[in-house]
Amino acid sequence: MLGHIARSLGRLQLLQSSLPSIRPVSTMALWPFSSQPRDFSQPNSTWSPEMCKVYDHYNTLCDTDTENKERKRAPWRKLPSYNRSIKYATGGIHLSKMIKAQARLFTRNIKEQGATFEYVVFVNKEEKRCVCVFQAGHLLEGAPGYVHGGAIATMIDTVTGTLAGFLSGPIMTANLNINYRNPMPLGSVVLIHSALDQIERKKQFITCKVTSTDESKLYTEATALFVSISVDHLFGSQN
Amino acid sequence: MLGHIARSLGRLQLLQSSLPSIRPVSTMALWPFSSQPRDFSQPNSTWSPEMCKVYDHYNTLCDTDTENKERKRAPWRKLPSYNRSIKYATGGIHLSKMIKAQARLFTRNIKEQGATFEYVVFVNKEEKRCVCVFQAGHLLEGAPGYVHGGAIATMIDTVTGTLAGFLSGPIMTANLNINYRNPMPLGSVVLIHSALDQIERKKQFITCKVTSTDESKLYTEATALFVSISVDHLFGSQN
Repeated sequence: MLGHIARSLGRLQLLQSSLPSIRPVSTMALWPFSSQPRDFSQPNSTWSPEMCKVYDHYNTLCDTDTENKERKRAPWRKLPSYNRSIKYATGGIHLSKMIKAQARLFTRNIKEQGATFEYVVFVNKEEKRCVCVFQAGHLLEGAPGYVHGGAIATMIDTVTGTLAGFLSGPIMTANLNINYRNPMPLGSVVLIHSALDQIERKKQFITCKVTSTDESKLYTEATALFVSISVDHLFGSQN
Repeated sequence: MLGHIARSLGRLQLLQSSLPSIRPVSTMALWPFSSQPRDFSQPNSTWSPEMCKVYDHYNTLCDTDTENKERKRAPWRKLPSYNRSIKYATGGIHLSKMIKAQARLFTRNIKEQGATFEYVVFVNKEEKRCVCVFQAGHLLEGAPGYVHGGAIATMIDTVTGTLAGFLSGPIMTANLNINYRNPMPLGSVVLIHSALDQIERKKQFITCKVTSTDESKLYTEATALFVSISVDHLFGSQN
């Protein structure tokens, strides 16, 4: 059970860094390292014009600070993305110090920009959905010239889990059911749409589809099931 | 459709390198580069004693060359694993030359040994099943201290696809349905068991479970659906 908690904790922690409103332990330092962490969801030089265009589109729909230092409310919110979890991980009990020190988030584990997962997630709380803009780098190959099915599954797990955690707090992944409709060429920029389907007690059913940026082509469809866990479990005893 | 072909082609090509008996185009060079490719499924210094022990166990069940240079037949066969597909990829038409030259198989894309996916697949043709020994490196983190659900999905896609391709030739992935039962600590060594469930015309239904090496703990269960495509499609026209 402890492991399940830690599993969902990872997603929540990433969200916590950007969303103080759902921070369960207000006195906890959210980033345990001395320097400011790099936000990997910021544009970089490897982003294609198509990636930049979609990013700019959703960015204009987000909350912004006006010249008068007032907050202009908007339906969308951009989430930051880091490559490490915070140090209070209960899961760490299993690990050697060496592994703990070197561990990095799977989707942000390579320093070379543009080589693997370039992505940014925008969430719309009112509509209970999010959109991820994803550019697939050359180190994600499965069949020659195409993105590996596991890399697509990884992004689906990441995006649906981000939405479930954003809406419901601490969660664990219980199921991913993925239908591959069309192969995705390496270098593609795609949208990963994720929406809350229904809630049954502690279960959140999330739908997901991966499309071209103009939404004319469907690459993948999926459903995901997440189970809520109590906040008490997050930093509670390890028994 | 072209993409689907290329998708399955990737798996087949990896198998072709080790399995001349299912090579569809006998005159084709199976490795287009001048030097001998590195087989990533060979033991290295980052393999834990547990990983080495399981590897040795299955290795003793494999075909071997005797002192008399005769082939001793055994039920299991170890498959090699490379980090590139061959250059005849139809999928490559979508890609810039830069991406084509730099592309690497997702599960073998990092030079640092032990950092991500250390694995080797053993197949048993008679029993229509395979076993993968997998050691999860520190760059596969999801929740703090645990392996990312996407990394587990990646290995399930890889192992079930390897079995489907080994038994039926060219295939494409149609569905992955994954139930996460227990989180997997980073650094774990696990077995990924995969078996043919049934065949319905062109469809292969594969089952998969991920367990501890003593099989006492179940981490993940999954089913996978693959669809056979004709060999003609592999190197045929792109129309």
